[in-house]
Amino acid sequence: MRPISLTIEKELPGSLARAGVLRTPHGEVKTPCFVAVGTKATVKGVSPADFKELGVQCMIANTYHLYLSPGENLVEKAGGIHEFMGWRGPIMTDSGGFQVFSLGEGYGKKISKLSKRESLGQNGLAEQSEENRGPFGREIPAAYSEELATSHGKLAIVDEDGVSFTSHVNGSLHRFTPERSIEIQHKLGADIIYAFDECTSPAADWDYQKEAMERTHRWADRSLKAHRQNIEANERQGIYGIVQGGRFADLRIDSAKTLADMDFDGYGIGGSFSKDDILGILDTVNRQLPKEKPRHLLGIGEPEDIFIGVAAGIDTFDCVLPTRNGRTGGVYSHDGKYLVENAEYKEDFTPLDPECDCLVCAQFTRAYIHHLFRTKEMLAPMLVSQHNIRFLTHLVEQIRQSILDDRFDEFRDAFMARYKVQD
Amino acid sequence: MRPISLTIEKELPGSLARAGVLRTPHGEVKTPCFVAVGTKATVKGVSPADFKELGVQCMIANTYHLYLSPGENLVEKAGGIHEFMGWRGPIMTDSGGFQVFSLGEGYGKKISKLSKRESLGQNGLAEQSEENRGPFGREIPAAYSEELATSHGKLAIVDEDGVSFTSHVNGSLHRFTPERSIEIQHKLGADIIYAFDECTSPAADWDYQKEAMERTHRWADRSLKAHRQNIEANERQGIYGIVQGGRFADLRIDSAKTLADMDFDGYGIGGSFSKDDILGILDTVNRQLPKEKPRHLLGIGEPEDIFIGVAAGIDTFDCVLPTRNGRTGGVYSHDGKYLVENAEYKEDFTPLDPECDCLVCAQFTRAYIHHLFRTKEMLAPMLVSQHNIRFLTHLVEQIRQSILDDRFDEFRDAFMARYKVQD
Repeated sequence: MRPISLTIEKELPGSLARAGVLRTPHGEVKTPCFVAVGTKATVKGVSPADFKELGVQCMIANTYHLYLSPGENLVEKAGGIHEFMGWRGPIMTDSGGFQVFSLGEGYGKKISKLSKRESLGQNGLAEQSEENRGPFGREIPAAYSEELATSHGKLAIVDEDGVSFTSHVNGSLHRFTPERSIEIQHKLGADIIYAFDECTSPAADWDYQKEAMERTHRWADRSLKAHRQNIEANERQGIYGIVQGGRFADLRIDSAKTLADMDFDGYGIGGSFSKDDILGILDTVNRQLPKEKPRHLLGIGEPEDIFIGVAAGIDTFDCVLPTRNGRTGGVYSHDGKYLVENAEYKEDFTPLDPECDCLVCAQFTRAYIHHLFRTKEMLAPMLVSQHNIRFLTHLVEQIRQSILDDRFDEFRDAFMARYKVQD
Repeated sequence: MRPISLTIEKELPGSLARAGVLRTPHGEVKTPCFVAVGTKATVKGVSPADFKELGVQCMIANTYHLYLSPGENLVEKAGGIHEFMGWRGPIMTDSGGFQVFSLGEGYGKKISKLSKRESLGQNGLAEQSEENRGPFGREIPAAYSEELATSHGKLAIVDEDGVSFTSHVNGSLHRFTPERSIEIQHKLGADIIYAFDECTSPAADWDYQKEAMERTHRWADRSLKAHRQNIEANERQGIYGIVQGGRFADLRIDSAKTLADMDFDGYGIGGSFSKDDILGILDTVNRQLPKEKPRHLLGIGEPEDIFIGVAAGIDTFDCVLPTRNGRTGGVYSHDGKYLVENAEYKEDFTPLDPECDCLVCAQFTRAYIHHLFRTKEMLAPMLVSQHNIRFLTHLVEQIRQSILDDRFDEFRDAFMARYKVQD
């Protein structure tokens, strides 16, 4: 019996949408599911003690960040990531590929292409995680340009065997290969680990994208072998392959087909050029993947995206936006997102979202949280992050129920008729 | 029936120590009690949703801070401070006297004397509460000197009628009188409010101290009248007078006697020159106060102080240190305080305090919280602040039980034999 398995409870005719149960060594995940992002083994501003109440079934941490600090050996000594952080529910670890490439950016600049033709350099980088920046390949800044793409800090060099990179914390030199990433993920001990992949630049042309994708396929094969050869880890951790191919539909299909033939326990859909590009071909991509295996959409999880992803057969989502927005007062509500620090909320004695079932909405008003932001109190980002997480887990719970009840389209249409999507 | 009343359950022979129940319009407070500091209607890093679990029975907010932001009228519109902040348990508001004077300091300098002979000026001040500085009169910096005492920012001028001051936030001009302070506190709506007092400089000589104390007595009388004349407020809020007199025992005794003759519902012991000064004469001071009325020690609440205070007849304490220390990783434990960010805790998989009953200690290790501080994660100050609050509420619960069980001295000696007091 594999450590990870999906039971499909209900499928909708006419789409790939489905509801199911993902079984992991640390418990079940009812799908579709919104996975909370806990890059450094902590969801920013939210205690693991509150996960259950906030409807958090699963968290995704990051191999690159935990490798740098506190180090995989310390986490292993603690008894694995679950024991280390005090959350005994299901956990995923991203492979670190995304971060190795995306953090190769100067502070304040956006991410750019990295290729083996460029030489390795160093520059000063702020001690911040990717949560505080526009992540590479997942949200592309409007002003993205070729110029930015070639002016980056050159912090990573790819070769056939792996990638050499400098730490965003202190500039020290490091090297990841597929085998190394898997070894680290074995020590971290998450329920679901990811194959090591190359995240390409949004500006990469078809030729480079194809080259990178094919290398990623070879790395997927090596990651899978490295995992299956570790009998002990293989019994307690499942491994997902990551579909790449950028904005090119033919490459995406090729990537999905190739990975589908490998013995992964599930699949992640990785670094796209933009949300619109990937969402447009997601259905096609997912049709290439084995139906019985779980599919995770990496780094995309705005409400409007989740509906599209679910219809295209995605089972799980993760996204930093609930907590990143939460820290600056960006609130999710049934009417769309708004900034609670704005003057119009100074005397608004209603909850953050009157239809939300979270403790924050049961106990606090917009006026109080407005005051907390204005006076720069720590409770402010805590409360909004908690509410935002619950907003999304609750939405996905409702989506799941609508699938089970055969009214997914109606639920989506009713929700989206009110929800104002921002650019 | 007064809104505030104390029932003494047990008194210890040979000292003023006692255990009781303080009744307020928002519930009972079992005394002795550690009151959590929530200056701006929030205990930094701790949600009101967690107060009960952390053993927080009562919170003290600040009139000066809430007057500046969000303003007492907004809090009144919200339905009072309880509704505003979502905590329906007992709340006190300090009168603002302490802050008006203590915030009259240049950023980075320590507090100094302010007198009517000095002219009003302005200077740039950081947008921070007193929680981030050494509070005036409560904790005096070792380097305190007359020189500092006369080089302050001159942000407040006292006259017989009240005090004019500039906001520490934006330098705007304001004026508090006893009547104004009470009016604001009526709108804030706490269960226990405080008379408006003048906090003197640690450097003030006996003559000035006496002058200020006598003015404070006149202000106490005016505060009391202003309160009793508001029939509605008088029915739902109790008022405490504040004993002053600095480090001079004769003045302290004079102050306690004078205030004891006034019809207050309880008494606060205010701004002392140093902890040692006030603690040494606390017993003498409290003996002047009516036994049946509650006594609050303002701004002092380290474990070693609490034992002294309880023995001297104090019923309630407040102190910013649990949360202020918590934000920088200073942890309370049965062995004393320590910095969890220190290297020795990197691989320490024990709880913050193995004998603590809080959720933080049940779920997280020093190694995890060390990691959170090292990676500057918001959860770090949240967890340590929560633990520290619980450490103190738990300690005071145990002290209370030891009084009820007639073993206060034994409990204190056993606790203090292990607890390492830092300078």
